[in-house]
Amino acid sequence: MKNICILGVTGSIGTQALEVIRDNREEFNLLGISANTSVKKVIEIIKEFNPKIVAMYTKEAFEEVKNFCVEYDKSIEVAYGIEGLIKVATIDESDIILTSVVGMIGLVPTLEAIKKGKTIALANKETLVVGGEIVMEEAKKYNAKIIPVDSEHNAIFQCLNGEDKKAVRSIIVTASGGPFRGKKREDLINVTKNEALKHPKWSMGAKISIDSATLMNKGLEVIEAKWLFDMPMDKIKVAVHPQSIVHSMVEYVDGSILAEMASTDMKLPIHYAFTYPNRVKGSTEYLNLFKYNTLTFEEPDMETFKNLALAYEIGKKGGNAPTILNAANEVAVDLFLKDKIKFLQITDLIEDALNTIEFTSKVTIDNILETERKVREYLLSTY
Amino acid sequence: MKNICILGVTGSIGTQALEVIRDNREEFNLLGISANTSVKKVIEIIKEFNPKIVAMYTKEAFEEVKNFCVEYDKSIEVAYGIEGLIKVATIDESDIILTSVVGMIGLVPTLEAIKKGKTIALANKETLVVGGEIVMEEAKKYNAKIIPVDSEHNAIFQCLNGEDKKAVRSIIVTASGGPFRGKKREDLINVTKNEALKHPKWSMGAKISIDSATLMNKGLEVIEAKWLFDMPMDKIKVAVHPQSIVHSMVEYVDGSILAEMASTDMKLPIHYAFTYPNRVKGSTEYLNLFKYNTLTFEEPDMETFKNLALAYEIGKKGGNAPTILNAANEVAVDLFLKDKIKFLQITDLIEDALNTIEFTSKVTIDNILETERKVREYLLSTY
Repeated sequence: MKNICILGVTGSIGTQALEVIRDNREEFNLLGISANTSVKKVIEIIKEFNPKIVAMYTKEAFEEVKNFCVEYDKSIEVAYGIEGLIKVATIDESDIILTSVVGMIGLVPTLEAIKKGKTIALANKETLVVGGEIVMEEAKKYNAKIIPVDSEHNAIFQCLNGEDKKAVRSIIVTASGGPFRGKKREDLINVTKNEALKHPKWSMGAKISIDSATLMNKGLEVIEAKWLFDMPMDKIKVAVHPQSIVHSMVEYVDGSILAEMASTDMKLPIHYAFTYPNRVKGSTEYLNLFKYNTLTFEEPDMETFKNLALAYEIGKKGGNAPTILNAANEVAVDLFLKDKIKFLQITDLIEDALNTIEFTSKVTIDNILETERKVREYLLSTY
Repeated sequence: MKNICILGVTGSIGTQALEVIRDNREEFNLLGISANTSVKKVIEIIKEFNPKIVAMYTKEAFEEVKNFCVEYDKSIEVAYGIEGLIKVATIDESDIILTSVVGMIGLVPTLEAIKKGKTIALANKETLVVGGEIVMEEAKKYNAKIIPVDSEHNAIFQCLNGEDKKAVRSIIVTASGGPFRGKKREDLINVTKNEALKHPKWSMGAKISIDSATLMNKGLEVIEAKWLFDMPMDKIKVAVHPQSIVHSMVEYVDGSILAEMASTDMKLPIHYAFTYPNRVKGSTEYLNLFKYNTLTFEEPDMETFKNLALAYEIGKKGGNAPTILNAANEVAVDLFLKDKIKFLQITDLIEDALNTIEFTSKVTIDNILETERKVREYLLSTY
């Protein structure tokens, strides 16, 4: 029986992780959860899974959950704020911490869990994009395993299983190509929010849909891969694969490429992370290769999708540059979604922030948070 | 430095293995070789690689090579016959035995090498098709590693690396589909030898080309996979993949499929077997996925290509049935190549032999050789 804590239990990944636990109640126990403000959902989860500890981000939400627990089960510990998140991340009896909170807020609790030597099922992008250097150093120091939960890095993790890093020639991250695959820069000048939000393969939140349309999602994943697999940026490649059947690949020095293929179902990498190093039957539908029988691969067009080229450059630069990139992208996407800037201006804003905000090669948590704040302040006062 | 012996050094696999050794002289030493009758080629190999032991199959060839060595280098041991093959297979200082002899003759030397605990780089189909039960039992007993050298089983071996057998849902062997892919039974009634010999992707020997046209090559590979990976036949599937980029796949119980892709170059699996468990840069051209960018998969048509269905049935039956299947196929293909029977009759002859030759579930080397003899005798006296 593995004890699991989920940071960000009411989000998309958190909800699917609950399904995985629900399907395997003899193998997994939900020990702790955190959420932002969704009191109603959290109370339902408490009733179904009986966690030992619950953290809510806001004081108000905390009070409501606390009041419920006083009636329902006094033994449940209820906490709040970043301290609450850290409590859930570091509770003694846990085996696996799934970090599926969205945004920078995931970084510190993840680091605290790492310091306790926990296995991290990592679904928080920012942890590696902005804090990769610190996080991987600490994971090494405290012997904490990090198992990536997004489908691309999970695929790479699977394809690397047991092989020496020196044997790797390149990592090939696949990309769906988004709604504007095949378009040129001039075609994208006047694209609307609704066009950008229409992902050809699946529906996702607004932010990630726009990142998929600009290829910034791949840019961030390439930076994550650099840290997660300790690879130089020039060994990390992107292949546009619109069918999204191959989730990513590893090319070895001897000429073999190992690829992981599966149905598009986030429950698979979550389940893999929870059962690792074993593989256990889950609820993911098996892939019928004879149904999805044509797989294609194209080079990404970095002239049109400049965000990807930018991410490569910034991944090489390191320091606080990925923090600037990530924060500027968040602000720019938000402004695009509010119709305040045009699609291609997303890249302009990121470049502006990269040229304006002071670069430092030395990364600390304080510096990351400070850089993040500066980027927001600068962009929001300028655009 | 690994000491390598090659049984069948002048054949296609043997020649490519020499290239692998030539490209990596600091890593591999050619310790011993065997050949059938190609004296001239063997003398060239002696001059280039200085092996310690050489075996020729025929007495005449042995005499010629012996005479050469008396002049050239008296310290080279020259042997002949099956005893010669066994000497090369069991020499003390060797690390890896590549068994690339063609036909039943490979079985006994491979078994002797296994009894010495050698690592076997296995390129002899018959060893597993007819002797799989014995061979794998002995390999377990003597802790001898068997690394398959044909591209399909080598791919499966790579995709299984480090994973528990219980985690496997199915093994998916890919097939090019041969020159008659898409044809129906009635289209194949009058196909000529020359049509059957025209493989769409590469040129090979006549026997293997016909096996590729009838899909018997996949049938034999499916039986090999059963033994090599200790899997029931119903967990082994075939996918027709005309591009021959994916060399085979493993599907896991959790829903992930791992696939190995590479350029079509036998030097890759040979090199992999020689360097295993490490991966080292070889001379295989790297696969450019953007060039071979469309991969397709189809279900095999077992109504038209009955040999494949037959192989599944016989693989389940076990005992000496695979020996009957294999020997009857050899005779039938030979008769087809001599224009004595028609294409679809190949299956008829195999079925005839399976119905006629006595079945036994208990397999011994003597029984295998006896069954083989009986099949040849029966078919050659009947057709």
